[in-house]
Amino acid sequence: MKTVFSPLHNRRTAMTELDGGILIAPHEKPSRAETILSRVRQEQLGEVLPPSESGLGPVLRVHTRDYVDFLRTSWVDWTAGDKPGEAIPAVWPARGMQQRVPKDIDGRLGYYSFTADTSITEGTWDAACASANVALTAQALVANGEPAAFALCRPPGHHAHADLFGGYCFFNNAAISAQAFRDQGARRVAVLDVDFHHGNGTQSIFYQRDDVMTISLHGDPDLVFPHFLGFEDETGEGPGEGFNLNLVYPPGTPFPVWREGLETACARIEAYQADVLVIALGVDTFEQDPISFFKLTSADYLLMGERLGRLNLPTLFTMEGGYDVDAIGVNVVNVLKGFEGARL
Amino acid sequence: MKTVFSPLHNRRTAMTELDGGILIAPHEKPSRAETILSRVRQEQLGEVLPPSESGLGPVLRVHTRDYVDFLRTSWVDWTAGDKPGEAIPAVWPARGMQQRVPKDIDGRLGYYSFTADTSITEGTWDAACASANVALTAQALVANGEPAAFALCRPPGHHAHADLFGGYCFFNNAAISAQAFRDQGARRVAVLDVDFHHGNGTQSIFYQRDDVMTISLHGDPDLVFPHFLGFEDETGEGPGEGFNLNLVYPPGTPFPVWREGLETACARIEAYQADVLVIALGVDTFEQDPISFFKLTSADYLLMGERLGRLNLPTLFTMEGGYDVDAIGVNVVNVLKGFEGARL
Repeated sequence: MKTVFSPLHNRRTAMTELDGGILIAPHEKPSRAETILSRVRQEQLGEVLPPSESGLGPVLRVHTRDYVDFLRTSWVDWTAGDKPGEAIPAVWPARGMQQRVPKDIDGRLGYYSFTADTSITEGTWDAACASANVALTAQALVANGEPAAFALCRPPGHHAHADLFGGYCFFNNAAISAQAFRDQGARRVAVLDVDFHHGNGTQSIFYQRDDVMTISLHGDPDLVFPHFLGFEDETGEGPGEGFNLNLVYPPGTPFPVWREGLETACARIEAYQADVLVIALGVDTFEQDPISFFKLTSADYLLMGERLGRLNLPTLFTMEGGYDVDAIGVNVVNVLKGFEGARL
Repeated sequence: MKTVFSPLHNRRTAMTELDGGILIAPHEKPSRAETILSRVRQEQLGEVLPPSESGLGPVLRVHTRDYVDFLRTSWVDWTAGDKPGEAIPAVWPARGMQQRVPKDIDGRLGYYSFTADTSITEGTWDAACASANVALTAQALVANGEPAAFALCRPPGHHAHADLFGGYCFFNNAAISAQAFRDQGARRVAVLDVDFHHGNGTQSIFYQRDDVMTISLHGDPDLVFPHFLGFEDETGEGPGEGFNLNLVYPPGTPFPVWREGLETACARIEAYQADVLVIALGVDTFEQDPISFFKLTSADYLLMGERLGRLNLPTLFTMEGGYDVDAIGVNVVNVLKGFEGARL
């Protein structure tokens, strides 16, 4: 399996994440991608390619123009105000308030976000663009006949809505790729999100559509981020009714239990007769992950990948979460190796 | 004029405020109230009384039960999670997400807030209760025949919605007092907010009602906090249509310009034939205020008070913002002295 990777991911090097009432060094950090890349090479997974420049066209198929403009200019606008720190939203349009875009950067930051854990920094725009290019380049490999490809995206994407950043995400790489498959002729696209956290952005983007099915297995949002989306009664809306599936698990969930959800997801994808599959690949389901509560082991990721491979669909993997950097390379590549093993 | 004051205000001593991407010492600090109290005594404004215990009944007339329960338990719930800092929301239900109260404290913090600048601390609940008692005790003085009274509230209240904290506010003392006047027989109550920032909480609480008129003079929310409410086209809704007035001013506004808005407000209050007046008194309109952009001088506050006094209404002042601590005592007491001078 080919991997697409851009060193520009390290243009995103935030120094602060609001967590537990203090500013800490972010969990989502450059060494995550570097560790995965090292493991890809060490295990000889396949060629590692740089991304092509896709431009903003495919991004604008799922994100709004005003949100994209905001992301591009936010750092300059923020620093023009002589702010001492990284750009962190501190006020937002809660229920009963106006959903209107204010002129001031403090207001725009709050308008276009749903979290304060994701500081915007000088290089964030460059890294987010590079990450989308990585996804789209890998998507093109699959669209052009590769059975599978790995988009080693960083920053991740699955929490980003059409016009909201947060949860370390800016552009929704999985959603952008799914839309690209559709725009290139796929009739039905399935997005399966195996990250520990609900893929709220991806769900939201396709919630009213039946041409992209979204499925997410994740920790109970009553207990864990993103808290305000990802419940099991969210099944889609309008034409999208029945085309979103959330499978929610409690603290301590081990692989044998999680795997039942994966079987449910796979059955749904098969019944949907998807032309192509996008896997939003997070490995924060790992037992040692510092911000999550499932109990998957490194060996389990081989089995996960094997099951995904048996779906026998052209498959794009986009990299999402996973914060135990020591294990992230092994766990990610285990999924990809397990996947390839099923195809032999 | 009598002043009501509680030393319990200093149970609110937050150490952190998220501002400009860093955590700073809060602008809203105990010395604000102490400085005002000193000036009240120095100028012999009148007797200083402690508050009576009003209980939560009057608070629950404007705030929801679940919000009050959240405020009461939030610090204990937060510290039970071994959080290193003060309680600051980091994720919230943005547009497109569920307005559902999650179990986890991180989720509840975001559900019940609209800002991350207002850390909840160990003594916040006690201070917020004391502040409401201060307001209600002063309200009772006016209801029982005093021509005016000064509720030296801290924390302030005018940004708090029925179920949202933020902008340094938890219980909306002005709204609680206005409702108490209504419950005790006043037919029409006018709330005039002269704080630099829009009184979004007060507006929101009474937005659909014609028995409490809300008027606010403030900095343009396109440019300044609270950003998502306070625009001039917000005039009330349903039975409340026509009973909310926002008068919005740009950076650098001096008193002669501001005063025109005050005249408009006074004319509206007179036409409304209010039985009683609540003044949400912030002095962050001051030229030296560190977080605001109007240009009122200390002498202007005498004139402001004089004009308010000429409305000849029973009047309750609730203390709101003002962050130049060196001048806050002089400016606040100038309003109150100007008011009393008009009544002589």
